Amino acid sequence: MSLQNIRVVLVNTSHGGNIGGAARAMKNMGLSRLVLVDPLDFPSSNAVARASGATDVLDAAQVVSTLEEALVGCNQVFGTSARDRRIPWPLLDPRETGSVCVDQVQGGGEVALVFGREYAGLTNEELQRCHYHVHIPSDPEFSSLNLAAAVQVLAYEVRMAWLSANKLPSKQEKLETTSMLDAQPVTADELEHYYGHLEQTLIDIGFLDPQKPRHLMPRLRRLYGRSGVSRLEMNILRGILTETQKAVRGEPHKRRSD
Amino acid sequence: MSLQNIRVVLVNTSHGGNIGGAARAMKNMGLSRLVLVDPLDFPSSNAVARASGATDVLDAAQVVSTLEEALVGCNQVFGTSARDRRIPWPLLDPRETGSVCVDQVQGGGEVALVFGREYAGLTNEELQRCHYHVHIPSDPEFSSLNLAAAVQVLAYEVRMAWLSANKLPSKQEKLETTSMLDAQPVTADELEHYYGHLEQTLIDIGFLDPQKPRHLMPRLRRLYGRSGVSRLEMNILRGILTETQKAVRGEPHKRRSD
Repeated sequence: MSLQNIRVVLVNTSHGGNIGGAARAMKNMGLSRLVLVDPLDFPSSNAVARASGATDVLDAAQVVSTLEEALVGCNQVFGTSARDRRIPWPLLDPRETGSVCVDQVQGGGEVALVFGREYAGLTNEELQRCHYHVHIPSDPEFSSLNLAAAVQVLAYEVRMAWLSANKLPSKQEKLETTSMLDAQPVTADELEHYYGHLEQTLIDIGFLDPQKPRHLMPRLRRLYGRSGVSRLEMNILRGILTETQKAVRGEPHKRRSD
Repeated sequence: MSLQNIRVVLVNTSHGGNIGGAARAMKNMGLSRLVLVDPLDFPSSNAVARASGATDVLDAAQVVSTLEEALVGCNQVFGTSARDRRIPWPLLDPRETGSVCVDQVQGGGEVALVFGREYAGLTNEELQRCHYHVHIPSDPEFSSLNLAAAVQVLAYEVRMAWLSANKLPSKQEKLETTSMLDAQPVTADELEHYYGHLEQTLIDIGFLDPQKPRHLMPRLRRLYGRSGVSRLEMNILRGILTETQKAVRGEPHKRRSD
């Protein structure tokens, strides 16, 4: 198991200093993989100053322009969020996040911890790309943590879970059982392709009105996002969509032979 | 019980920015009592900038010249420390610290969390004034946390312990959010009806051959069975099947209106 499989994704960060502080917090906790989505101030001398020796993390940071690119290859995505959202989503506290995250990585998966803008957080659309939302249990009267401080709390909980997992061999055995090839979850980008296919199929059968989509796709995203769909299951789900589209067009059946 | 009985003591801090960052981290976690022992840069505009709204904590900060003064009235003192000291001392991790600290405060005691200088930490003499040493389990290769980040980790663990001691208000709220009718899982018999409907639909679209079913249904059962499908999600899934069957039969669309 490697903490290399855990990436920290900072979306649209305004202040280079916060990127540096996040890099330092990561390195302190043994994390090294930083992805910056459209940062407003990077590279930055403030980032280097606040990184205070974690410049290797900054130098190796990957800069991309969309969250989608940042999540390529991820099996599980955790997005930090304020508590109240209109559509309830699987919500974890930092401790649970550390534990779920390390379980996933021990099974060979890749995970992303996603942090939003300093003032506005993540958009609803970005949050819907996350399989879990994470809320740091701050005082409701003064709830917004500094970005680097939020990275520190989650990185700390990941490290606590990792240290604990590396002391408990029985837990590792248990995880090996569930990490058989069948149970390997698909990546975030594969899930996105599925959602695109699903949406088109729902339009084709007349269930989804693109003019009035309501909350249909977010709700389906939430369902499949939390299910940890395996590669084999994804093949089945995609197969069902393809056959549904053919059947609606009146094309001849092709029986499945797995 | 009041978190007012927990004071954060910063000894001989060099940078005002770190004092401000510590104040913000404290206030985020519901702590308010800050004591500064001989600070080198306070009051400070950098402190105000990094406090980002926690100026009330800065304004109320008590400035003293010795650690002894800072600890007056304390029943228990926790000092942050690197791991290896020549004199073995009761050593806690941040989680244990949160728990011991909250136990003490619940019994009416007063406690202090003491943080040393940015570069040199606490002296051996200062550490010997502490009843417990606290070590944040950082990567030994890069172990020194930013001061405000260290305050954030301990304040977070105090808050987690405090929420837990107060019958988990945050967790209860969380459960309320996710146990709304939306998140209420369906019953086993409703799931069985769904599987029956799903199987028939897969036959209708030609994806499932009833003569050669292979492992298709068991695999789909495993997927949906572990997902904790809610009543609302079940309505969506059943709706999709019904519309698929109609579309395959060439019946007119009925748009969904939820």
